Amino acid sequence: MSFRHPDRDQIRIEDVLSALGNPLRLAVVRVLDAGGEHNCSSVLGVLGVTSKSTMTHHWRVLRDSGVIWQHPSGRENLLTLRREDLDTRYPGLLKAIMAGALGDEAAQAVSAQAR
Amino acid sequence: MSFRHPDRDQIRIEDVLSALGNPLRLAVVRVLDAGGEHNCSSVLGVLGVTSKSTMTHHWRVLRDSGVIWQHPSGRENLLTLRREDLDTRYPGLLKAIMAGALGDEAAQAVSAQAR
Repeated sequence: MSFRHPDRDQIRIEDVLSALGNPLRLAVVRVLDAGGEHNCSSVLGVLGVTSKSTMTHHWRVLRDSGVIWQHPSGRENLLTLRREDLDTRYPGLLKAIMAGALGDEAAQAVSAQAR
Repeated sequence: MSFRHPDRDQIRIEDVLSALGNPLRLAVVRVLDAGGEHNCSSVLGVLGVTSKSTMTHHWRVLRDSGVIWQHPSGRENLLTLRREDLDTRYPGLLKAIMAGALGDEAAQAVSAQAR
């Protein structure tokens, strides 16, 4: 089964922001941003998520918004961040979001330690 | 009536992205980003939106996510983009989003002309 993806020029910024404006989807993109090839199971493993059915929805949102490629590979689906497309359409956006997510995490760790 | 707003360090990137991941809210922020003081009515006027009740929800999402200040001023509410807070927490994010929205608009105008 092969999936539909928007072309680069069909990507819309509100869809990208909406896709990334969810903790689990943002976490997925951070895993993909770190590099390497990932299938759905390996991303779920990194995130400690076990419900495949919940993720079906999230994969679709990420795919339909143009944030990831999702392609069949054997019995699994291979996930890739559409970095080149996003960087071309929205220079600096992905970098700012990834840095922001890292900053949030550091800030939360500090506030947790202070308790 | 005065509104609750998150402190700068309570802002979370997924909430900011989710708030801006909506065409109407993104349009509001673009109006505020262009500068000047705005009350709710004047923003709605610029956008050509007449339903105040719909916007009550959108103001709340923008306020709760830390994207705007909303303060009573006479019989109206004054809206301000929390640019300094956002730029401090997420350097480059707002700029990339505003440039991206402008780019989308230009791309859509070109494709409309080509039809």
